[in-house]
Parts: sequence; structure tokens; C-alpha cells
Amino acid sequence: MASPKTQPRRRLSVDERREQLIAVALELFSARPPEEVSIDDIAAAAGASRPLVYHYFPGKQAIYEESLRRAGQELAGRFEEPLTGPLSERLSRVMGRYLDFVASHGPGFAALLRGGSVAASPGTNAVIDDVRQAAHDQILHHLDLDDPGPQLRLAIRSWIAKAEITSLAWLADRQHEPRERLQQHLVQDFVVALVVTAAREPGLAPRLAGYLAAEHPATPTGALVRELAALLATPGLPEALTALTAPDPG
Amino acid sequence: MASPKTQPRRRLSVDERREQLIAVALELFSARPPEEVSIDDIAAAAGASRPLVYHYFPGKQAIYEESLRRAGQELAGRFEEPLTGPLSERLSRVMGRYLDFVASHGPGFAALLRGGSVAASPGTNAVIDDVRQAAHDQILHHLDLDDPGPQLRLAIRSWIAKAEITSLAWLADRQHEPRERLQQHLVQDFVVALVVTAAREPGLAPRLAGYLAAEHPATPTGALVRELAALLATPGLPEALTALTAPDPG
Repeated sequence: MASPKTQPRRRLSVDERREQLIAVALELFSARPPEEVSIDDIAAAAGASRPLVYHYFPGKQAIYEESLRRAGQELAGRFEEPLTGPLSERLSRVMGRYLDFVASHGPGFAALLRGGSVAASPGTNAVIDDVRQAAHDQILHHLDLDDPGPQLRLAIRSWIAKAEITSLAWLADRQHEPRERLQQHLVQDFVVALVVTAAREPGLAPRLAGYLAAEHPATPTGALVRELAALLATPGLPEALTALTAPDPG
Repeated sequence: MASPKTQPRRRLSVDERREQLIAVALELFSARPPEEVSIDDIAAAAGASRPLVYHYFPGKQAIYEESLRRAGQELAGRFEEPLTGPLSERLSRVMGRYLDFVASHGPGFAALLRGGSVAASPGTNAVIDDVRQAAHDQILHHLDLDDPGPQLRLAIRSWIAKAEITSLAWLADRQHEPRERLQQHLVQDFVVALVVTAAREPGLAPRLAGYLAAEHPATPTGALVRELAALLATPGLPEALTALTAPDPG
């Protein structure tokens, strides 16, 4: 169907046209919640007719879900990171790419994650679940554990939810927190979750010592340790903690 | 319409019948996901006819949303707790009542929070949002802060998400963790979030010292402090942390 010779405005092949419609739709669905994007908007932005869009997709929901699937794949791709260097630096690079994605797909990302949209469906939920699973799997890959326990899996899932909630709050009001601080905080929150989980899963403690030995003062973990050390200098706090180290009489 | 004289099976008044239908529906929607409950099921369980149910509610969605609203109010009521005693003990009592609710409304609670249900709607999302807001407000009330910062609000929202995720995982596999441990962990996770936030919001640090001074060794906070102290005895860990306290050269 595609003409091999290139013309000033050559006709797109079936595959090219489909890809073009998805790309145009993704751009529109990134900039506005799905209920504010119509088939006519997509057709106009693609320089196509309404019947042509319907020739490729049964309706708006189908093109929404397909463009979401592409966005999900792109986001999951950003989670990949070489297995070298301090863990908190690796995670910081990933979170930088994640926040780039969030910033460039803001309104659509917010509408999708806030849920309750008329366009929410098993299909859109599956895309969200796949991205969360990809994040979870990448983290376990970097932790390099043979047999991660249920506490750790739960801690990872909870941290992913925290990253979503935090980035939604940031999108709603970017004045509140500079991006670099947000990025650093999310990484540090992960380190804290890992430490707390190591107190609950005995097998994780020696691994934690190994992870921390690979960090250095300039990493987000280094900054966290110094911030907590400074907090410990708050008047009354060391005494309160010391009193709690007494054995539980109960 | 209601007969004032009591008979062996007196007719229910309009209000009584409505309340009875909601109570019956709530029981059914607690035990099964909404798509597995029909108007016929509700009518049968209430000893009523299908037309009678339709006389009170336009359809299944309306009765689902109303029963959910009642459940949400009941759950939010469980968050109320006297403003006395160590914070982690107060939160532990609330979490005990929360986990009772989760256990007794299991399948319906899971279906609601997992989302993607055909019955999910702006109405059901509003119920979830109201319950989250009630939890958030109760926590701030107990922290007794005049002007909670954005970091703290975010930490509270994230912890609420963690409580939801954790209780969903627990419902799916109650073998993994005894209820008492789950309750203790959730409370301790809140304390950790508060500590980390105090390192980021300078005004919170002196308040944190005050909260901790009111704790004692038998509270969840006491157990947490001892668990973290034990973790610190992991070979290699103190050295790794000490190396990170050096000033960032960058």
C-alpha cells in the first residue's frame, strides 16, 4: 500500500498511519485528561479525517488505551539502569528520568493515576499495574537478592505508591518543592524503607551492611545519614531514645 | 405508612425498609465484589421483592454507593481516639479497629481499593477520598501542630497508602504475617515517617522530641528503637554509617 517513492506529502503506510495516530493521541492525552480529548481533536492534530481514525481504532477508548500502553512501555524502559555504583546513586538517576516523564506527561499522568476517570478500565489499570511491576522487578534486580521476603516486597510496593503520590502532589504544586530535592527525598525514603525492613527480615541485615559500605558521603544516602545525625542533636531527643532502649517490662 | 401496633411480622416503615436494604446490601457487598452481587441477591437476602428494591433505589449502583457511604462513615468513626497517652499507643488502638474492619469487610474492601471494578465511579472514589481525608485529619489532630508543613502532609498521605497496600496484601494471604505484627509494623512505619520528616522540616524536630519523651519501652515506638539498635550491631554497619557522616566533598 505504501508508495516506495518519496513525495512532498506521500501517503503514509497502514503501519505508519497507525503509529502517527498513536503518537498524536499520546501527545493530546498527556496534555489533557482523557474526557477532554475527542476523536475530532485526534483527527485534527493528525491532519486526518474522523472516518480515517475510526478505520484504525473502534473508538476513543481503544486509541486511549493503546497510547497509554506505549507510554507505559516508555516509562518502564526508563527504569533500566546499569548494575554498578552505589545503590542510591543508581536509584537517583532512575528517579531523575521518572520525574522527566512525569513533568512531560503531567495532566495525563495525573488523570490516569488519580483514577475515577470515565476512561478508567481494566485495560488502563493493567497498564498501571505493569509499570508498577516493572519498577518492583528492577529494584529487586538491583538489590541482587536470591529470595526477597514478603516484608521487602511490601516495602517496595509501598515506596512505589509513595513515589506516585509524591509526584502527583508535585505536579499539582511545583512551587512547594524543587525537583532536585524531591528526587533526593524519594531516594532517601527508599533507603529508610530498606533499613526498617532489614530490622524485620534478619537475612537482609548483612546485605544492608554491604549496600551501605558501597555508598559514599556525596550520595543521597550520605546526605540522609548526616541529616539524621543532625536531627539527633535536637535537645531532649537523645535522652528520649535512650529511655526507650530499656527492655520492655511487659 | 407504618403500622404503630407491633405484629409478629409488622410492615417496616419507609425509613426502616430503606435502612434494612442498605444493611443487607452492605453485608453482601462486604462478602463479594460488587459485580457478583445482583439486585435479586439483595431482594432475596432482605426478604423483599425485586420491584420493592427498585422502589427505593434506581439500581444496583445507587444501593452500592449508599452502602459504601455508610461503611466509609463507620470506618472513619473508628479513627477517633482520646488525645491522651503515647502517640504510638493511640495509633495502635486505631489500627486495631481498622484491621477489625478490614477483616470483616474483606472481599468488598479489596474489590473497592483494588479499583478497576465495573462499579468504580466518582461516587465510590469520593467515599474512598473522604475516608483517607478523615484519617489524615485525625493524625494531624493528634500531632497537635498549628501549621503542619507540606512534607508532613505528604508523609501522612503516603503512610495511609502504605496502610491500604499492606492490608490488601494481608487479606490476600493472612498466613504471611500475624495480625498483631502487622498492626505493630504499621504503627512503627508511621513513627519512622515522622522521624524522617522531622529531619526535613526543622520546626517539627522539637515536637518530635516531645512525642518521643511521652513514649515508654512497652509502646510500639519502644520496640522500634530496640529493633533498630539491634540492627546497628550488624557487622560492618556501624563502620559504613560512620564513613557516611564525613562532610560531602562536592
